[in-house]
Amino acid sequence: MIQKLIENIKRTNAPIVVGLDPMLGYIPEHIQKAAFAECGETLEGAAEAVWQYNKAIVDAVYDLIPAVKPQIAMYEQFGLPGLAAFNRTVDYCREKGLVVIGDVKRGDIGSTSAAYATAHLGRVKVGGQMLTPFGEDFATVNPYLGSDGIKPFIEVCREEKKGLFILVKTSNPSSGEFQDRLVDGKPLYELVGEKVNEWAQECMGDDYSYIGAVVGATYPEMGKVLRRVMPKSFILVPGYGAQGGKAADLVHYFNEDGLGAIVNSSRGIIAAYKQEKYASFGPEHFADASRAAVKDMIADIGQALAAR
Amino acid sequence: MIQKLIENIKRTNAPIVVGLDPMLGYIPEHIQKAAFAECGETLEGAAEAVWQYNKAIVDAVYDLIPAVKPQIAMYEQFGLPGLAAFNRTVDYCREKGLVVIGDVKRGDIGSTSAAYATAHLGRVKVGGQMLTPFGEDFATVNPYLGSDGIKPFIEVCREEKKGLFILVKTSNPSSGEFQDRLVDGKPLYELVGEKVNEWAQECMGDDYSYIGAVVGATYPEMGKVLRRVMPKSFILVPGYGAQGGKAADLVHYFNEDGLGAIVNSSRGIIAAYKQEKYASFGPEHFADASRAAVKDMIADIGQALAAR
Repeated sequence: MIQKLIENIKRTNAPIVVGLDPMLGYIPEHIQKAAFAECGETLEGAAEAVWQYNKAIVDAVYDLIPAVKPQIAMYEQFGLPGLAAFNRTVDYCREKGLVVIGDVKRGDIGSTSAAYATAHLGRVKVGGQMLTPFGEDFATVNPYLGSDGIKPFIEVCREEKKGLFILVKTSNPSSGEFQDRLVDGKPLYELVGEKVNEWAQECMGDDYSYIGAVVGATYPEMGKVLRRVMPKSFILVPGYGAQGGKAADLVHYFNEDGLGAIVNSSRGIIAAYKQEKYASFGPEHFADASRAAVKDMIADIGQALAAR
Repeated sequence: MIQKLIENIKRTNAPIVVGLDPMLGYIPEHIQKAAFAECGETLEGAAEAVWQYNKAIVDAVYDLIPAVKPQIAMYEQFGLPGLAAFNRTVDYCREKGLVVIGDVKRGDIGSTSAAYATAHLGRVKVGGQMLTPFGEDFATVNPYLGSDGIKPFIEVCREEKKGLFILVKTSNPSSGEFQDRLVDGKPLYELVGEKVNEWAQECMGDDYSYIGAVVGATYPEMGKVLRRVMPKSFILVPGYGAQGGKAADLVHYFNEDGLGAIVNSSRGIIAAYKQEKYASFGPEHFADASRAAVKDMIADIGQALAAR
């Protein structure tokens, strides 16, 4: 799957990923109204609104981008109907040729991690059948529990040719509370990065590993260090745009080959019509606003990479 | 909800929790066969088997125990039907008066953590309605992302009178890879424990906080230290039985008042009929084997507490 991600990035010339994190507050009123008219003010109604919103955005931008990253929490908050909308979104994006990164941040130990890996990246045996539960291409994973938590994910990735992005340094203000603490003179995130690099070496595609890392756009100096610590890992970079990360800061997340990083924007794209810059599209044409925002993001990052 | 947990523990005189972590391999063949006959060898069939298995065990043990801890990964691996079985199990256990600890180990930042908190402990606004997505009483949470990740959970707990168990020191062999690393001479798990204690002080019930911690039974010396670091927090203790934790080691997880800890057993209870000790029950009477195993566990821990 790392090969497909790289092919998609080369084809689109766009090292970006669109975060499909649909809050109800982002969804234009006409879509919410139609969904509630059909299904009532229920979890099903909310899920229907989410699905219609996602579909319109994916239809508007899929030819420009290599990958999407649905954030499962935003679906899980609408219970089972919400997770059905997640499932449908994953399937639809894969049909459109997009790589789907399930932003699930799961992590447990042993057979429990194996069950999560199966849920999101694998197949489960039921009687004589092998069935696909959710079927994303990549999943984000939390490393706090150590190798016992990660290895079951790696095994499923090997079997299914899927991939991981392991949390190393997250984009939020308080991420340093634990991640930056010094261990033998080195911050914890660097130790985690070194572990990711070990795991990555064992799981190589052609040029890159299928074990990647998450490093927030909001900590560019740490990104620079971590790029060197994990040379074979793709870095998934949240925090661009709305959280304050700038394109010029992100060039160090990439390798010399122009690959090795994929920059996420969620609300900056999917709720673009709410920004002054794209307000002229209006809520009716929210998906066109998203397309314009994707083009601007690609140009912004492209220019920064060209200028380095 | 911490009050209800304490009342339930006092009423049953059993500081234990039964982990409802149904692997298909644990479920007796007659239940699998009946479920597959009804729904086919499908995710729905697996979920039906899980539900019938859970229901029989809950019916057999609910009067002896204060709480259950369904591990969501085991349901998630069967996709949407699996999560429907999770939902049904949560509802059924709550109807039976049990406290339900959703072992979900979620964790993210800001609005995403808020969405997870809503999903598992809160209610979501859809139009003019407030709806309950999954409705557990407690959730387990991963601390790697720091306060930004935990505070949205705490806010929902305050509003809904629910609670958390935050991962501090997990029971698995490699948990020390990151959790034991020394920061300013102190292991990371202790720093996390100190943070949990800060959060706990802000969220007090009568005698205990509704912010608790997870500390594995397999590290009793660390449990002793962490008991002192977090005096007001309940400790959820995995790793008893199958993972090797012994009752005598666990007495230090409790406070002088005999409260402050709740010990989990999953496969030791739900798959008791597979152990030599309970083999005479046979697969047909698996739920009676679970009841016998619960009684033995309560006696084992009770004796250890009486002997301290």
